Order: sequence, then structure tokens, then C-alpha cells
Amino acid sequence: MAKKVVIIGAVALGPKVACRLRRLDPDVEITLIDRDNLISYGGCGIPYYVGGDVNDIEELYTTTSHAVRDTAFFESCKGVKVLTRVEAKEILRREKQVRICHLETGEEEYLNYDKLVLATGAQAVRPPFPGANLPRVFTVSDLHDAQTIKDLMSQGKVGKAVVVGAGAIGLEISEALTDLWGIQTTLVEMEDQVLPTLLGKCIARIAAKELERHGVELLLETKVMEISENSATGQLLVKTSRKTLEVDIVVLAAGVRPNTTMAREAGIALGMSGGISVDRRMRTSDPDIYAGGDCVEVRNLISGENMLMALGSLANRQGRIIATNINGGQSHFKGTVGTFCIKVFDLGISKAGLTYRQAKVTGFDPVYGVVSQADHAHFYPQSELIYITLLADRNSRKILGIEAAGKNGDAVKGRVDTIAVLLRHGVDVDEVCSLETGYAPPFASAMDVINNAGNALDNILAGQSRPVDVADFLFEFGHKTTRVLDIRGAKEAAPFRVKYGARWFNIPQNELRRRVDEIPADEPFFLLCDTGPRSYEAQVFLNSRGIINTRNIQGGFAMIKVTDPEFI
Amino acid sequence: MAKKVVIIGAVALGPKVACRLRRLDPDVEITLIDRDNLISYGGCGIPYYVGGDVNDIEELYTTTSHAVRDTAFFESCKGVKVLTRVEAKEILRREKQVRICHLETGEEEYLNYDKLVLATGAQAVRPPFPGANLPRVFTVSDLHDAQTIKDLMSQGKVGKAVVVGAGAIGLEISEALTDLWGIQTTLVEMEDQVLPTLLGKCIARIAAKELERHGVELLLETKVMEISENSATGQLLVKTSRKTLEVDIVVLAAGVRPNTTMAREAGIALGMSGGISVDRRMRTSDPDIYAGGDCVEVRNLISGENMLMALGSLANRQGRIIATNINGGQSHFKGTVGTFCIKVFDLGISKAGLTYRQAKVTGFDPVYGVVSQADHAHFYPQSELIYITLLADRNSRKILGIEAAGKNGDAVKGRVDTIAVLLRHGVDVDEVCSLETGYAPPFASAMDVINNAGNALDNILAGQSRPVDVADFLFEFGHKTTRVLDIRGAKEAAPFRVKYGARWFNIPQNELRRRVDEIPADEPFFLLCDTGPRSYEAQVFLNSRGIINTRNIQGGFAMIKVTDPEFI
Repeated sequence: MAKKVVIIGAVALGPKVACRLRRLDPDVEITLIDRDNLISYGGCGIPYYVGGDVNDIEELYTTTSHAVRDTAFFESCKGVKVLTRVEAKEILRREKQVRICHLETGEEEYLNYDKLVLATGAQAVRPPFPGANLPRVFTVSDLHDAQTIKDLMSQGKVGKAVVVGAGAIGLEISEALTDLWGIQTTLVEMEDQVLPTLLGKCIARIAAKELERHGVELLLETKVMEISENSATGQLLVKTSRKTLEVDIVVLAAGVRPNTTMAREAGIALGMSGGISVDRRMRTSDPDIYAGGDCVEVRNLISGENMLMALGSLANRQGRIIATNINGGQSHFKGTVGTFCIKVFDLGISKAGLTYRQAKVTGFDPVYGVVSQADHAHFYPQSELIYITLLADRNSRKILGIEAAGKNGDAVKGRVDTIAVLLRHGVDVDEVCSLETGYAPPFASAMDVINNAGNALDNILAGQSRPVDVADFLFEFGHKTTRVLDIRGAKEAAPFRVKYGARWFNIPQNELRRRVDEIPADEPFFLLCDTGPRSYEAQVFLNSRGIINTRNIQGGFAMIKVTDPEFI
Repeated sequence: MAKKVVIIGAVALGPKVACRLRRLDPDVEITLIDRDNLISYGGCGIPYYVGGDVNDIEELYTTTSHAVRDTAFFESCKGVKVLTRVEAKEILRREKQVRICHLETGEEEYLNYDKLVLATGAQAVRPPFPGANLPRVFTVSDLHDAQTIKDLMSQGKVGKAVVVGAGAIGLEISEALTDLWGIQTTLVEMEDQVLPTLLGKCIARIAAKELERHGVELLLETKVMEISENSATGQLLVKTSRKTLEVDIVVLAAGVRPNTTMAREAGIALGMSGGISVDRRMRTSDPDIYAGGDCVEVRNLISGENMLMALGSLANRQGRIIATNINGGQSHFKGTVGTFCIKVFDLGISKAGLTYRQAKVTGFDPVYGVVSQADHAHFYPQSELIYITLLADRNSRKILGIEAAGKNGDAVKGRVDTIAVLLRHGVDVDEVCSLETGYAPPFASAMDVINNAGNALDNILAGQSRPVDVADFLFEFGHKTTRVLDIRGAKEAAPFRVKYGARWFNIPQNELRRRVDEIPADEPFFLLCDTGPRSYEAQVFLNSRGIINTRNIQGGFAMIKVTDPEFI
């Protein structure tokens, strides 16, 4: 067993390793060091502190029982020694020592270790455009940034803001600025959608509309060229490829980069993604040195590729594994399937696995189905719609990914998590069709939305259903002349017949069999119903009558409404 | 392909088979028959109609787009012929005919089939005590019962009621009577807990307290001996093994029995449970006859035994499979892991797999862990506690079951469903510890309650943690002299020190290392903290100081509070 364990970094993974290890071994000497004076805080809570959901910054570094997680707490409650304001400078692998510097005094010393743990985390990227280092151009990588931004806002010094990068942090910070503080916020993103590495276009559009609905100005396919100061007004001029914005603060949320300098200098292997390479036991290329959290790369179990994934949840799970292994146990971290969730104003969004684009790049032949359905039984009074896209490989029928959105975030996450946990087991479409999740009218439908996501995809793969997703429908309807055959009731269709004239053809479902001869057999049609299953059913029926040039709009009217409210 | 398909029973499975089959094959002749005039309704919605969550009975047999699912609907929208008020009397397997009777006219005829589907469902059991057939002794097996009960209540004719049987229907009906109608309800159950076939004692106790908190009188280990009429008052006298109750109505919720008479008379094999035997394709012993839903038995994939499981969700999933197979496809229903959920007043309760007792009977060596933890990050303002018990086999470390309760029912169901879907894959404790579910502070903790359920059980299996569950703690504390060592703050412990005197010993966690000498090493102690992890940590520390006669109370004070509010 190790006698001395040194852990560099005291935010998520570091404290987890330290506390678990102490519980496993009362005698090992554990030293946890950190550059900062604030340690063991919930970094993922920063946007909620900035936005005001979390009032007091202390809540982010107190325990559930309201004890402040400071040096004294770790000493008295956990039996762990913590050195703060101490920077690790160098790893001397041969000597099994770490050279450290006490930042307040500049004094240096060497700590001996039997096992070393690198929990050095990641830092926010400052993109290479001019002005990225100006004052009031912030990142949100630690509590100090958060404090500064919040102080400025509460002093009334922020009326307008630009957030650069529509990844998870960018969205969370945009919401934080807008929702409580009423700051006029512009979110700038280079790619053609929000959350580009996390979502496909269907669910990303729903997220984008939710941002806009709450007043966030969203500039997609837009690059920041330069930030400068307007010396007259004292404001920041953010020059983008689209327009120039004059704002009080800029928040950079352009991704994070793992902190690996010290590891690299010590000759520890880094992976292709730039993170530290670790094996399943979370050991680096030096078997006496473990690493985990935001500074390592992890294996994507679907694509097979190594990737960076900076998530507090992975860090905590890895931390426990590292402690078990240091104590002589055998515990493995096999990789990730990229499970993720986020709150975007009133929506919960969840995903796991690959997006359509990522699946293509990886060499799969991806096919997806889209469904909209209530989270609870349709007759039960409280229910919200859930929108799901489910992605599978055409040949193997293996599920590659799932994305979902809805107002009941817990219900959305619940559906996605059931697929997420199965992904590493190689779940196929058929298993999703009869997935045995809990059923009672207050919490699910007898044929739940997750089963129907499987059913919809099964029908597509079987060639039974010829679908079009709402994004493609909206584009084609806007650019071509294809008509809609709306099989909802006359009342529901009426406003669209007014708005779109002859392009909106209405035959209610219960009249379809009788009136089928009214439909020109050679004309292409989009088939529309409320949420999708009836337009699929209509398509099958029309097929049998020789009307085969139809595509059913997946997710139906519900999906159109949430994707493009102006269409209506 | 089949040319004629006859389906007997038009509630859940029957319509599913018919509609799916029509979508797969536009030409097959499909006839759906039912004794009743009301068809294709959401039977699981009955308690919500009785209770008033669902106002109009029509909502239970309309579609999401408000079409009434009657004979005309099936004809015009689905292309399916439905015969109502028609009873199937006999299956002539050699002739491939069903003898049917038109109930209104008494006329009989024979329907030819190529494939027959038995969707005959189940009926409520009337227990064999005298008076079980009296007027105003109801079951709730169809919409007519529901209508009658609701009519009586809305006419003000029901002040008191007895519900017999604390299974799922018994609990749902008790809530329905009490919650909106304010009826003084007594729930009588023979076993020593509510939901005896579904839950272990820990979560069952939480459910029981929730019933009592809302005014339901709960009589456990109580048998109904006889029901009679009090001719003077016109009320029903319910004589139980404990006391006699005088009430206006009795609702029997003593389980259901599969409707198998016709199948049995036709020589179709029944299983040991009394349900119709089917293979994975849902075929009976006659390959031209399929069966599914409440009249068949299904394989429990954990115990390996066949069982009855009357759930609308299974019926729907099986219905789709039957249609695929009739159409010449290959689709399998492999069995069930017993996933279940229920709303009990303000609580959501979910489970999957076996209970402790069932696991014992099946021959496993079950071990369980109990945790209480917030569903969302502890610093996030909106969160509710979730209480989980996780059960594994000691040797194989395979998970055998999970049960959970909490006020956020969607979050509770979400956690249980992630384990439920893995059960058939043989998930072990280690996989639960690092289960990759979605994480963001508004929806989960970095180390989520589900991971910590795995961690707690892992620590128990490793011999690191010596636990006691709250039920056992409450019994022992009430009957023996063992003291509690409360490691919460002095303020939290104060009222208990007043109430329990010297039996309540308080050393706050942060003073434990310093004051360890105050603890008599040879005395047994219950260790208590808020939710459990700190008492475990304290136990490990005390071990290292030679104080080894301790048990940590799983789920901590939170679990005591929800299990026995009077203890406090």
C-alpha cells in the first residue's frame, strides 16, 4: 500500500480521491494541494450563482449539511491535509517528488509521494482574436471570475453583454445574464447551430428558439474578429463577421483546454486529443501517477475514439475509482457514452451517444427517427411534450445516440438516461421498442415516448415509414412548391389554409379513406398530423392506394411549433 | 400471410394488434370483438377518473387528438372492423373458428380465422368471504364500476369506505376516495406492509406513512371476515380480524385473475401461474393462436420464473410484437424485470426487479443498501429527496432489484428506470457506481443518488460499511437499550437529547477525531447523520480507533423522518 499520496488539484476529482482513500485506509498520508484559496467547490454551479438561482457563493463550497469545505474541514472531518495557495511546479518522477511553491511567500519545497494524482483540470480557452485579454472580457472558469461578473452586474454596470460560444457554458451563462439580470445578451457562435458538438439540428433548433424566446440574440455562423475599447463610452466594441456590438462585458465560453503542461514536461504521455492518456484504472504512462477529471482524455465507447469531456460527474466517478485502485483494489473506468443534460430557460435538454454528423464521420450509416409525445398519459391532467430524436446504424440496427427536449426536464433526462446506460451494452432498435420502463398514468404512457421513438425508427428502417424532419420540411416548404396534406381536423387546419392557400390541403384522418380519390396520385406531399403517428398511418394507407410520393413530418405539428413559432 | 385475423378483447392489447397489423398489411381482414360497448379505453386511468384528476369518462377512451375510440373510429380511421357487445363463447381450433354470441340479440355465429389473438384480460378477484357479492361492494375492473362509484360519491352517498387489498389498485383507489372526495377510507391488507409483492419494507413504510399522513386508515395484518348489511342504517358492516367498520361502500382490490376459461376449454396450455403460456413470439401452444396482455403469464428475467403481470404497458408492447409476427416478421418478447411505478398522494414510488423476500425465496443471497439524497445538486434551489434501496446478490454482485420513493416522481422513476433497463443485461454493483446518467445541477448531483446507491452497496459488500436500515433501527431502539451516536451538529441533536436523554449521545462530525476517547469502545452504537454518508465515514474512522461495535443508520435522519415522523 502507498504510504504517501499527493494530489494536485482540489476541486472535483482531487477531494473525491482524498476522502475515499482516507475511508479505505486510515493510515495513508494524504496531501491535497491547490493554487487557489477556494477549494472543493461545485464549479458546475457557477452559472447558477451568476444568474442568482444560487444566492450566496458559499453555497457552492459547503456540504449538504452546510459545513464549509475549507482546509479546516478537510483536516477535522476528513483527516486530509490540504495546502492552498500552493502551486505544483514540477514532477520529479525518478525521485518520486513534486516541487511545489507556496504562492504567498514564494518559498519552494519538495513533497515525496508513493502515488501521485493529477487533478489539474482544464482552463477556459481565450480565442486568438485581438482584444481577448482586455479587462471586462471574462471567462468563467473559477469562482473568482463568477464573483467579479456578479459584482459588476449588481452594481448596475452591465446593460449589454456578448457571450462567445454556444456550448453548454455559453448557453448557461446567456441564461444567467438574461433571466434574472435582464441584460441584453448576444450569443455568438461560429457553427450553424447551438451546442454543435452535443446535438443534431432538430433538438438544437428547439434550444435556439428557447433562447430567442427569452430575449437572447443568437448569431450563428458568426465569428468574433476583434474586441476593442471605445475610449469615449468605455464600452467594448465586439466586431463580428456579421455586425459590431457595443457592450459592457464579454464572456468567453469558447471551450476549455486540459492543464497538462506539468505532465507533459515530466514525460507523461498525452493523447491525440491533448488530454493526459490513462488506462482503465486511471493510471498514466507512469504507473505511480494517476490522473482524472478535466485533464485526461476518455474513450468514447460508441465511436471508439478518445476525447476530452470536462464534466464534474465523470470527475467524481473517476475519483472514486482512483482511490480504490491506489488502495490496492481493482476498479475500472471503461469510458463514456457522452451523456449530457442542460437546462435552457424552461426547457430540459438531454443527450447521449453521437450526433448524426459525428456518426457519419465515424463511418456509421446513421438513420434517425423523431417523435413528439406527452411525458405522462395523455388523459392525465399534468403533462408536457417531450421531443426525441433517436439515431441508429442502418445495418446493425444498433442505437448510436439519443437527444431529447421538453419542459419537464426530469422526465426528459429520465428517458435519455435509460438509453444512455444501455449504449455501452450495444442496445438495438428492437430493445427500445419494448424497453421496460415504469408505467403509471401520472408518469408515463402505456406505450411511452421512449418506446415510440424506437417504434418510429423501426418503421423507418423497415421501409414502412418515409419521413422528413421538421428542419428539412421548413426549408423545403420555404424553397419549393411541395404541398402539405394536413390530416388534422378542419378547425386545426383552417388558419393554415388561410395563410398558405392552395399549398395547404386538408383531409381529416377520419375522411381519408372516403376522400382518397381527391389526392393526385403523382404529386408529392408532406403529410402532417399533431405529433406524427397519424401522418405515418396515413402514409401507409395512401401507399396501399398507390399514392406513394409522400413524406410524413416527424413529430408533427407539435415539432413545427417548437422549432419555428413564426411558421404558424 | 394471414387473410383473416380475429382478436378477442378490445381494451389494451387487442386494438394495438389490430392497428399495427393494419399498418403492416392493408389487405388482411381484421375483426376485433368485445363483450362490452366501451372499448379501447385507458383502464389504468380508472382511479384518476374516480378521484377527479380526469373529469370526464370520455377522456379515457379518446385519442390524444380528442377522437372517441369507438366502432366508427376504428372503421374510418384505422380500417378495422369492431364488433361490440359480442362475446366469444368457444374456440374451434380444428375448424379455425370462434363461436360468438351477439349479446343484445342472443344470436350466435361462427367467425373464421387464420390467426386468432386472445386479449381476454383479467378480472378482479372477489375474495371468498361472505358478503363479497353484496350491492355496493365493488371492484374496479372496468369503466362501468368506475362510473357507478363516482356517481354514488357525487350524489353525496359515500362518507366512509373500506378498500380491501393494499396492492397498486388498492392504493390508487384509496387516494382517489380520500383526496378529492374527503371520504373516510380504511385500507385493509392481510400482509404486514403495503404493496407486499412489489416493495421491501423500507420503501413500503414510506408509502404507508404517506397514506396515513393523508388520512387513510391503514390496517395491516388484517383479514376481512365478512361483509353484511346493517338493515337499520343501510350501511355495510365490514368485520375484520381487528375491528368492525360501518361504511357506505367497499372496494375490492384483492388482485386480478386472468380470463382463461375459453382458452383452457379449447385445450390451450396454461402455465403454473394460471395464465396462458406463450412463447417469445407470443404464440400459445396452438401456433395459430397468439395471446398477450393480462391473460398470459410472462417470464421474470431475474427469478427465471413465470408470473402474471397485469400492466397496460406490457400489453401495448406485446401487442406490437404480435402484429409483427402475424405479418410474418420476427419479434420477441423476452420477459419482464417487473418495472413498476405508482403515485401515492405527493410521492412517486418506483421499483424494478425482486424484493428482498422474493430474492431470498428464489435462492439468492441478497444484500441491500439504502440511501437518501437530493435529486438535484444540493446547492440548486429546487430539489427533493429521493430514497433508494438497491439489492444485489452477495456472491455475484449482480443487481437483483431497486426501489425508490420521493416527491419528484419523474426523477424517482428516472433513477429506477436506468437500473430496470439494465437488469436483463446482468448489471453488477460496480456498473451502478459509475453509471453514466446525465448531469447538470438543475437535474442531478455530480455523484448522483443512483451512483451513491451503488457506492453504499459496494461499501457494504466490501465489508467497509456495517449498516442497519431504519426499520430495524426503529424496532431495536424501541425494544433494546442500544444508544445513538449522533454526529450531526449540537443544534440538530438537541431535541433528541431532550427526548431520549442519555440514549442520545452527540459528538458533531468535526469534533469526532478530537473527542474519540469519550466513546466507550466496547459499547454498541447506532451512528446517525443527516442522510447516511457521514455516519458511514464516522464508522470507518471509529473502526480505525478500535471502536468496532457500531452500525450506521442507512439513509440517516432523512430516512427516519419519512419512515416514522412520530419518532422525532
